[in-house]
Amino acid sequence: MSRQITPWSCLKGKDIPATIELDSVIYGYAYPGCRILDIGCGTGKASIPMASHGFSVTGIDINQEALRIASSSSRSSCPASIPLFVHADATSMPFPDGSFDLALMQAFLTTISTREDRATIVKETCRVLKPGGHLYLADFGQTWHSGIYRERYIHDLPVTKEDGSIIAYDPETGEVAYIAHHFTEKELVFLLLENGFEIGFFRNEEFMTRTGNKINGFVLVGVKIGDRT
Amino acid sequence: MSRQITPWSCLKGKDIPATIELDSVIYGYAYPGCRILDIGCGTGKASIPMASHGFSVTGIDINQEALRIASSSSRSSCPASIPLFVHADATSMPFPDGSFDLALMQAFLTTISTREDRATIVKETCRVLKPGGHLYLADFGQTWHSGIYRERYIHDLPVTKEDGSIIAYDPETGEVAYIAHHFTEKELVFLLLENGFEIGFFRNEEFMTRTGNKINGFVLVGVKIGDRT
Repeated sequence: MSRQITPWSCLKGKDIPATIELDSVIYGYAYPGCRILDIGCGTGKASIPMASHGFSVTGIDINQEALRIASSSSRSSCPASIPLFVHADATSMPFPDGSFDLALMQAFLTTISTREDRATIVKETCRVLKPGGHLYLADFGQTWHSGIYRERYIHDLPVTKEDGSIIAYDPETGEVAYIAHHFTEKELVFLLLENGFEIGFFRNEEFMTRTGNKINGFVLVGVKIGDRT
Repeated sequence: MSRQITPWSCLKGKDIPATIELDSVIYGYAYPGCRILDIGCGTGKASIPMASHGFSVTGIDINQEALRIASSSSRSSCPASIPLFVHADATSMPFPDGSFDLALMQAFLTTISTREDRATIVKETCRVLKPGGHLYLADFGQTWHSGIYRERYIHDLPVTKEDGSIIAYDPETGEVAYIAHHFTEKELVFLLLENGFEIGFFRNEEFMTRTGNKINGFVLVGVKIGDRT
């Protein structure tokens, strides 16, 4: 990941945003004994409930403080089934090919500020999934009808250099926290299609951001091309 | 309109597609005594129910056969309140400035095959509305997650010359009927903003096409910039 542009590893762990709720559609792709990888797990908002359902969950994140919070929360909330938290970079994961049945990305790709890194991450996710494995992802869509977002897309373009991206500020200090990208349907669909997946499920959504704005979004499931073994 | 590309005036009146149902949101913008213009009214599928609610409705279309069907249907179905049907081209309407309170376009812009004509039509609609008047429109969105549409967008691009456009075929003869454009949110929002409107209402929708496919869509209300008189 481009750490110069997205200093995600330097954000305070408690400030990692996690506003999208896990959509129940994911449970249609999880089955007893399946191995789940939560990519960009942050403080464990998705990993912990998935693990408490009895699934074998591994959460990775580049932010070590968030992982410490995730680890201590999981020990107090679901001692019977604790996710494994791993400090790792999603562009180069420390897992052999075909290690997981299901990967999930909850508003994760939005935080990756270049197309190249997003493609690398989706390809890498494909690699660590078994053939026929699934990638569930929920993320933000470009919301041009909203004056607030429209102005930010246009205003921030000289810095972000990408249509539909905005600068996200620290709500306390007002300083630049990271760049967030909002997707078009076409962009997200081809990001999957060009990196090893078919589209298995797609739904347009309306989400709420951490600052309380309504925003377009997508819930999507990609299927790794190849027969399930 | 580019009649060479879209021979809309030559379609059989009964074949004019009209699959999007009028969204009830329009009734929030219609009030007793208001004058409504239905642009691309076809066989009157929106004009006739609006008129039966007691509103003063004018429907325009470039297809004379569709207007004849509309006219005769309206006489049999709502003799008390009959829309006025006018044979006219939406790029150059035969009405003075500020003639209407509310304009509606029901899957109409999709049938206009160039960006220039769409801009001209929205500007012309703005002209014939009163200041503060409203433009309700419902139209199709680009549906890249659907393999059917994705393949058609790509396959038809050499002919349509525009991303998100497809060739629509006559369901009986299989011949080319017209080119249909599907919009992105950004495109539709700026089409209004750049031609005299602000965005007053916006909702993502899922429509059904005349051939039974699910497709993304939008319901949108533009407000003509300027104080209501």
